[in-house]
Amino acid sequence: MEPQNRHRTIVVMGVSGSGKTTIGKRLAALLELPFEDADAYHPPANIAKMKNGTPLMDEDRWPWLETLNQRMQQWEQGGVLACSALKESYRQLLSKNLSIHWVYLEGSMETLLQRMEARDHFMKPEMLQSQLDTLEPPSYALNVSISNRPEQMVSEIIAKLGTMQSDLGIVGMGVMGRSLAKNALNKGFKVSVYNRSDPKEAHILPNFLKEVPPERVLGFDEWEGFVNSLSQPRRILLMIPAGTAIDAVLETLTPLLAPGDVVMDGGNSHYRETQRRMQNLASHSIDYLGVGVSGGEEGALKGPSMMAGGSETAYKKVSHLLEAMAAKEPNAKPCAALLGPDGAGHFIKTVHNGIEYGEMQLLAELYALLRGLISYEDIRTLFQQWQEGEAQSFLLGLTAEIFSKKEGGSYVLDKVLDVASSKGTGVWSSIAALESGVPASMMVEAVLARHLSGAQGTREVWAKLRPVPKTVKQIAPETLLKAYQWARLVNHLQGLELIQIQSQKENWNVQLSEVLRVWSVGCIIQSKLVQQLQQQLSQHASLWELEWVLAQLPEGLEALQEALQWGLTQQTALPCFSAAWNHSGGLTTINSPANLIQALRDAFGAHTYQRTDRPLDQQFTTNWKDHGA
Amino acid sequence: MEPQNRHRTIVVMGVSGSGKTTIGKRLAALLELPFEDADAYHPPANIAKMKNGTPLMDEDRWPWLETLNQRMQQWEQGGVLACSALKESYRQLLSKNLSIHWVYLEGSMETLLQRMEARDHFMKPEMLQSQLDTLEPPSYALNVSISNRPEQMVSEIIAKLGTMQSDLGIVGMGVMGRSLAKNALNKGFKVSVYNRSDPKEAHILPNFLKEVPPERVLGFDEWEGFVNSLSQPRRILLMIPAGTAIDAVLETLTPLLAPGDVVMDGGNSHYRETQRRMQNLASHSIDYLGVGVSGGEEGALKGPSMMAGGSETAYKKVSHLLEAMAAKEPNAKPCAALLGPDGAGHFIKTVHNGIEYGEMQLLAELYALLRGLISYEDIRTLFQQWQEGEAQSFLLGLTAEIFSKKEGGSYVLDKVLDVASSKGTGVWSSIAALESGVPASMMVEAVLARHLSGAQGTREVWAKLRPVPKTVKQIAPETLLKAYQWARLVNHLQGLELIQIQSQKENWNVQLSEVLRVWSVGCIIQSKLVQQLQQQLSQHASLWELEWVLAQLPEGLEALQEALQWGLTQQTALPCFSAAWNHSGGLTTINSPANLIQALRDAFGAHTYQRTDRPLDQQFTTNWKDHGA
Repeated sequence: MEPQNRHRTIVVMGVSGSGKTTIGKRLAALLELPFEDADAYHPPANIAKMKNGTPLMDEDRWPWLETLNQRMQQWEQGGVLACSALKESYRQLLSKNLSIHWVYLEGSMETLLQRMEARDHFMKPEMLQSQLDTLEPPSYALNVSISNRPEQMVSEIIAKLGTMQSDLGIVGMGVMGRSLAKNALNKGFKVSVYNRSDPKEAHILPNFLKEVPPERVLGFDEWEGFVNSLSQPRRILLMIPAGTAIDAVLETLTPLLAPGDVVMDGGNSHYRETQRRMQNLASHSIDYLGVGVSGGEEGALKGPSMMAGGSETAYKKVSHLLEAMAAKEPNAKPCAALLGPDGAGHFIKTVHNGIEYGEMQLLAELYALLRGLISYEDIRTLFQQWQEGEAQSFLLGLTAEIFSKKEGGSYVLDKVLDVASSKGTGVWSSIAALESGVPASMMVEAVLARHLSGAQGTREVWAKLRPVPKTVKQIAPETLLKAYQWARLVNHLQGLELIQIQSQKENWNVQLSEVLRVWSVGCIIQSKLVQQLQQQLSQHASLWELEWVLAQLPEGLEALQEALQWGLTQQTALPCFSAAWNHSGGLTTINSPANLIQALRDAFGAHTYQRTDRPLDQQFTTNWKDHGA
Repeated sequence: MEPQNRHRTIVVMGVSGSGKTTIGKRLAALLELPFEDADAYHPPANIAKMKNGTPLMDEDRWPWLETLNQRMQQWEQGGVLACSALKESYRQLLSKNLSIHWVYLEGSMETLLQRMEARDHFMKPEMLQSQLDTLEPPSYALNVSISNRPEQMVSEIIAKLGTMQSDLGIVGMGVMGRSLAKNALNKGFKVSVYNRSDPKEAHILPNFLKEVPPERVLGFDEWEGFVNSLSQPRRILLMIPAGTAIDAVLETLTPLLAPGDVVMDGGNSHYRETQRRMQNLASHSIDYLGVGVSGGEEGALKGPSMMAGGSETAYKKVSHLLEAMAAKEPNAKPCAALLGPDGAGHFIKTVHNGIEYGEMQLLAELYALLRGLISYEDIRTLFQQWQEGEAQSFLLGLTAEIFSKKEGGSYVLDKVLDVASSKGTGVWSSIAALESGVPASMMVEAVLARHLSGAQGTREVWAKLRPVPKTVKQIAPETLLKAYQWARLVNHLQGLELIQIQSQKENWNVQLSEVLRVWSVGCIIQSKLVQQLQQQLSQHASLWELEWVLAQLPEGLEALQEALQWGLTQQTALPCFSAAWNHSGGLTTINSPANLIQALRDAFGAHTYQRTDRPLDQQFTTNWKDHGA
């Protein structure tokens, strides 16, 4: 759905120095209309007079204005004319047989002089005063104050005239919002952007507008103009911090929207909030989509993964935008999809981030294992070798880069504070695992490892008591690689299981292979492993019993065992590798020791237990202290 | 505040066989009043007539009734008389100079005959009919139907007459409610109990009333009688399932209560719910306490730990009850205390349970390590030896018992299903840790281990691929004990830290040493370790830097290392032992590897990082891909 084009004849008027040409040209470019400067149409006689410094009389002006009127009548789609048009009589002549949109650039003597000085133009104050004296301001024009920046003036004009209509509106010009706006512009869309006028953020919008081609972008710091600049049904993508900011924006935005408009939340919102907001907007007949966006700054710019949740009706209205902006698989299929109804998109993004936590923690643990034994250069070389093979991932590649980055001869990494905090998606995915009975221990341990990194004071005390390793065991790099790959596999299976269980609970009908496809390129956890899992999952159903997984189990477990033994002798904390081991070890134990827990609970609290030799719908209790038998 | 005593003269009337004596005696016992049977006061002439089967005439009765009236006037505190008192004229004579509470036991001919048959009494129907014909039912009496059970009839009479007032009302006669009611009765309190009349639970109240001395207990299945039976300010302890049941009961109960009454929730409620309910009841001027109760069935009966949260005003009204019922320290101090305002009691109980999860999981892991190598008898012997020393705990003692319990020659433990579920407090304490940045990994791993125990299907597939241990390493029992003790110490410190951080966040001002004191006897995690920690904490402030802890660190870590190595060679999952190791290992690492995580986050998302060589209030970002320098 392209913006509707219609015949638009615009005259930008005002005294000398008010910026008619600048504004007129920008306006014409944005609207894809011809621009003309009235001064270029003066007959030779008038030009001669002006050269001599003789003021033009009204008689001199009539033929010139007649010519301009005829010129404008020839415009096929309309056009933009910059013309002082100070008197009502001039304007009447100009508008003969035409419906003109008048734009009057308004400014005080003071402002006009300041502007001219700033632009190093010279004009005698008395000449400006004479123009201002002549001026008969039109009551019917769109008045635009020249005290604003030109970009904002143009956005305001276009919004108020309703002359250009953007394909997409983006709210919030932070790292991700900016990158996604550029991405959409690069794909040929017209984009309106909004950023709040908070003094701390006043530089953000002008800076952004300087970086992008002006022909297809409108910038706003007020809502009405932003909303009016969008073609209908309006498509608005919120790229603002999750939480109360979203609710505040929706409260302001909703009354300005029309039934059928679509609002997308591209931030990391909690899926329950998304469910609530979707229901709320549905009562205003406005469509809402929770869209998880992953790929970081570069991904957002060049093509992120986009995990949408909501109705099919809503998704159809924006699929051309999302799919154009998203990363592409080698077969050119876009890594954007509607993955399920209501909160499914944001939940899947949350778990994506949980897996990302696990992936980063595993890398940190490899670093902890290796840093005492080999140089950063050797670590980089090792990771680059791994990156050539099955272990390839966006994050491993980035890690190798980090081990190269020096500043004044020393590694930047060594200057980075060793404290990582954790909130939002990492914590939420862990809580979801705890609440829905999924033993997704690796994302949980990754969060807890970040929590522990904050205990610097205690570390200083405890480190003095650290036992000295007795023997530094060696481990073959291939074994370490196998342990790493097996741990990553467990991490991904845990996350996928969490999505599967949640999808069942919420009746989302999420297709895991489609999730993996969307994750295969563009997002932070993109990797060969994700691609392999996708291929495997499209053929099979049970995550933990995939033959491809079972085939790797014995070697993976043995490698993990060796890596952990190595960590133990080195006194290295390996919470995520341990979690992978304990999960695998738990699953290779035919009888879990949880029978003791059940017996204890019955012994102290008469909580009852089920028996292996009786139907499972029966509960038993035993007097455990009576040792008769 | 003892129930108010006042002069109460009660006559229980009705035809023969209506149960006047039974009811009268119970009533008198509960009210601590003398009981008299009118028949014992007949003059010899009347007795002779009755022996001969000659019916008494009204003239025979006047002197007898006169005697009874005089007898009743002599009662100092009042008393209970069982007397048929069928006619109005008899009753007028009986009540001369007295204010009598008349209780009329009412029943149809049919019911009366049934009752007599059931009690194997013989009475000619015509004689009963003659009594019923004579009867002039009083309009002013309290009518009580004899179709109910005697206990209920008595409860009803007492409630309606307002003659006995209980010190404590307990709602819910489940395992914990029953045991706490018996506990309060054993301590000499008068107790009213309520259990709902739901058909599935109809047996619960009568069964309970049969088990307890009837003199000081009233049972109800309706709210009004229950509430009216309590002395004011009323003290009500809810022992019903946490969640919506509490809200439903509060909705019914609140309108029946008076300002100044106290309601206690003794269940495992979420502390935020308790905060909400407390605020809500405060608007009715009703006090509310969230009371964590731990000790299981036996603890509730003999003396549990009671962790109260709420206002001091509210606690003062119930402290005599809670402190009498609670377990006692060796110095006789009760293990009940107000540990903080609003939700503090329930939060502390939640964390208590989180620690309990960790304790049980450690025992399960010891079992997993040992069961392949030594017999259950040897495990029991080992644990009993440990129980004699520093490792003594309620749960270890119970575990040793479980390894003794046989049934038909085989161990009951082997028949218990090896699946443990997890909800409520275990999950809540883990979520609290995740949300408040406390790395309490052991309670979390204990929850996840329970989740994993549910994956029986996958276990059956994976167990077939379990690598055969190459060498079965031996470990000295003392080393295993040290590893166990160190892991328990970490578990307890994690839980205490969680309470500390939450207390700071909520401004609860919880004293950890007081928490440990309340936990030292009575509760499920009572142990020598808790007592030792209490002694240490009362002198020091920082949990992780207690000298007593630091002194154990090197040996504890080495033992844990050996235990984990042993577990690795045996392919045994040890999630909680691993968590203890990784926590300790993390804290003995002067530089955590979290700098890599921060570098990665900056590299892909421009999330910025702090630097060790710059002030920590500054944020930096780096182009990590540009390898110049």
